[in-house]
Amino acid sequence: MSHWIVGFTDGEGCFTVSIINNHTTRFGKQVFPEFVITQGAKSLRALDLIKRFFGCGQIVLNKRYDNHNEHLYRHCVRSTTELNERIIPFFNQFRLKTYKRNDFMTFKKVINMMVNKKHLKQNGWFKILKLAGEMNRKKKRF
Amino acid sequence: MSHWIVGFTDGEGCFTVSIINNHTTRFGKQVFPEFVITQGAKSLRALDLIKRFFGCGQIVLNKRYDNHNEHLYRHCVRSTTELNERIIPFFNQFRLKTYKRNDFMTFKKVINMMVNKKHLKQNGWFKILKLAGEMNRKKKRF
Repeated sequence: MSHWIVGFTDGEGCFTVSIINNHTTRFGKQVFPEFVITQGAKSLRALDLIKRFFGCGQIVLNKRYDNHNEHLYRHCVRSTTELNERIIPFFNQFRLKTYKRNDFMTFKKVINMMVNKKHLKQNGWFKILKLAGEMNRKKKRF
Repeated sequence: MSHWIVGFTDGEGCFTVSIINNHTTRFGKQVFPEFVITQGAKSLRALDLIKRFFGCGQIVLNKRYDNHNEHLYRHCVRSTTELNERIIPFFNQFRLKTYKRNDFMTFKKVINMMVNKKHLKQNGWFKILKLAGEMNRKKKRF
């Protein structure tokens, strides 16, 4: 099951770090890390397998449809603790084989800083902004 | 490696049966089965791993780009013999966990009919057309 999950994540998984507005925080913004796998409704069972395997995260209905006009579902893990204690140790042990490993390595750095509360200090905050900017960036086509 | 390949195929693989024009054939058309995995240039190494694992297929550059403006590559297996002797036995042994298994089951029927030359007779030809129509169909959104 572990190797199947690594392969499936290499295919469909995503490690993202978003920066969202939150005026109650020190910098007016908040770090929002997420591990996500998206599937069409017909493959919801595969998301259930993953959720049960990791023992964490939620399966949520997506607003958009896939190109077969099918509902999309996402398995999301957003809790820093769960990311740190379940998701990261798993992908440390079972290595991703695509370029997603690079995103994972950056993701891991961000989670580690958050666990150590470094995102609450200015130095750490700017470092996280820089790391988030390196991940999942869409380039303009010239 | 086998389970990783199943997971990666569940994520990014595709079993397709296209019907293309070919006026040299009996019915003016030709069955064109294909097993494909697509990846961005940065993950070309993963396609190489798959090509070496199966010992067949070609890696070809795609014309379109992905949404990161990166070149896309496809590992394609198109030979009926290789599909029958390498790809199908593998996915018979290592079961896909998403809805792609349904496409695989239909794909297998088509390849089996082609190996037994049933696509050259009218009955078989119409049956293949029907099976191809059941696969990878894009639905209209109402």
